Amino acid sequence: MNQHLTDLVAWVNAQHLSLAYITDPTNINYFTGFDSDPEERITALFVFPDAEPFLFVPALSIEGVKKVGWPYAVSGYLDHEDPFALIAAEIKKRDASPLRWGVEKDALSVLKYEAMTRHFPQATFPADASRFIEQLKLIKTPEEIALMTEAGQQADRAFQAGFAALRTGITEQQIVAEIEYAMMKEGVMHMSFDTIVQAGQDAADPHGGPVATKVAPGDLVLFDLGTNNHGYMSDATRTVAFGGPVAPKAKEIYKVCLEAQLTAQSAVRPGLTAAALDKIARDVITKAGYGEYFNHRLGHGIGMSTHEFPSIMAGNDMELQPGMCFSIEPGIYIPGVAGVRIEDCVHVTATGCEPFTHTPKDYTVYGL
Amino acid sequence: MNQHLTDLVAWVNAQHLSLAYITDPTNINYFTGFDSDPEERITALFVFPDAEPFLFVPALSIEGVKKVGWPYAVSGYLDHEDPFALIAAEIKKRDASPLRWGVEKDALSVLKYEAMTRHFPQATFPADASRFIEQLKLIKTPEEIALMTEAGQQADRAFQAGFAALRTGITEQQIVAEIEYAMMKEGVMHMSFDTIVQAGQDAADPHGGPVATKVAPGDLVLFDLGTNNHGYMSDATRTVAFGGPVAPKAKEIYKVCLEAQLTAQSAVRPGLTAAALDKIARDVITKAGYGEYFNHRLGHGIGMSTHEFPSIMAGNDMELQPGMCFSIEPGIYIPGVAGVRIEDCVHVTATGCEPFTHTPKDYTVYGL
Repeated sequence: MNQHLTDLVAWVNAQHLSLAYITDPTNINYFTGFDSDPEERITALFVFPDAEPFLFVPALSIEGVKKVGWPYAVSGYLDHEDPFALIAAEIKKRDASPLRWGVEKDALSVLKYEAMTRHFPQATFPADASRFIEQLKLIKTPEEIALMTEAGQQADRAFQAGFAALRTGITEQQIVAEIEYAMMKEGVMHMSFDTIVQAGQDAADPHGGPVATKVAPGDLVLFDLGTNNHGYMSDATRTVAFGGPVAPKAKEIYKVCLEAQLTAQSAVRPGLTAAALDKIARDVITKAGYGEYFNHRLGHGIGMSTHEFPSIMAGNDMELQPGMCFSIEPGIYIPGVAGVRIEDCVHVTATGCEPFTHTPKDYTVYGL
Repeated sequence: MNQHLTDLVAWVNAQHLSLAYITDPTNINYFTGFDSDPEERITALFVFPDAEPFLFVPALSIEGVKKVGWPYAVSGYLDHEDPFALIAAEIKKRDASPLRWGVEKDALSVLKYEAMTRHFPQATFPADASRFIEQLKLIKTPEEIALMTEAGQQADRAFQAGFAALRTGITEQQIVAEIEYAMMKEGVMHMSFDTIVQAGQDAADPHGGPVATKVAPGDLVLFDLGTNNHGYMSDATRTVAFGGPVAPKAKEIYKVCLEAQLTAQSAVRPGLTAAALDKIARDVITKAGYGEYFNHRLGHGIGMSTHEFPSIMAGNDMELQPGMCFSIEPGIYIPGVAGVRIEDCVHVTATGCEPFTHTPKDYTVYGL
């Protein structure tokens, strides 16, 4: 049994649960190694204090489960069958009347919840597996950090493909096409999110995507991208100048943003709180007079998704610990002028942190 | 107010609800035109019988909501704020004690459900908005069919890019790279799902994805792909021969699969049940002796997602009606030999159906 699954069984025992019912596809991958996108179909993992766990999947996926070496039971259902009745029968083989259920309160839908309470009217739901799993995921194993390091190297190559594509008149969308094509040609089939390229004033919208805007000399061009390496994500942002010097104001916010990013990254150490780290970066930007233009948290956790814990933000008193992985991504967005964001994801070490990406962050001008 | 939102308000009134609480991002897009991927953040639409609706989004997204012309209230929250407390305050401005809630039982998490029951202990949840919305989405408007027709034309161009990439030694993954690159270069930034290319025996796994397998002369090569056109999807499959005639068995299952697909597609008409349509295709394959190798339903509904209703399968007595959109995709998968699937999505008309994709389906050999 792998360490993650062993930890889940231990939690089931510690909470005196009859079973844990896991439905989130990323969590199922975390515990079993089986990566699937079941869409509206049902995929579920059931874990018991004593009996062996079992996976329940669409019949089409049974071969896929066997391929990843899942050593326990797996059962399937066809599209015209009632999956909840089959699940209930499988559970009853192991526990005729499970009373205390651990479920993912973030992921379990009211529909699935009601289906189980129909089959098991005595069931109670005292334990939130979502909270347990997000705590478990906080600290990455060396194997996980190795996969994320590789994902970071992929992201570094993606930046190079993006910078190489810069030329007058190319659109943001065409640059994205070049980046993702370069990745797929080397067999990296999934980015960790839709690649963002924003030129000039477009970058002042931190929630915008790539559009048909053409890159022009004197633009700052923002690249925010990452890859999915066997289920583990990279995520990094670089902002570069194109075709000559940018306007003084744009260059100034670049320098302030870079100072904020570097100051925060070098401040990371075990015991520092997430809120304190956010403040270290925010103070640099606020002192320079741009505080109102940094309108999001400093960072987010990363691992099997790009939205994990710890959240690096005001109010989060969680202390950083070795093995935690998160982004450090200050941004300054001045509508009508320019936008800058600079981001590395890092893992906390015994004395500081190591970034997963190594593309230079100094202000750089790419030629015409 | 657009027709979809008007229909939702009418449902809230007909069900005597205090409000409807919509959280699924695709459903929010359907009712508001606001397309977002909030990940772990909260985005929600609230609709009332008398008061105007409101959207609740991350603060970063407020500009995006205004850009799409949402004419009603929108409020936001920052990452460190409690979204559920803010939502409760907004609701109480409109109804101090809403008793009857309509929620999406497929999408609403137990966490959100419990948060609302803490703020509104008297709340009951008598109506399932998921079931209502899936019925509402069954029949597409002419505007929706126009967007899906355009998505089908994009898919036809994607097939051409894929067929053009065929050469000895190119891998399945590299063909996918060429297809998605061609789409992005023309500004189609999102496929509707991960493009599938499978050569030779790989195609016998209907749930597999593209791998590093190289295409070889004599292979059947399966392409399953689609695009996302302003939120509306295409989805189609073609299987072609590469580099000369394929083995007689592979050619035979191609002909059987094609006959099943064409027979079913020409049988579609209002009043036929989904189950009967599945049986029409399945009977062709069963009579030819390959019934056991067609191990999935004939088709799925399509619209803003590739997994809607109607489901074209045994047991579904729903009668087809004009405006319904779904796939017709028989497949024959013989492990160790070959796999064939042929798929068009269609919309039902007064007298039959029209496919969204027009790439020829006859057995075709692409040269070296």
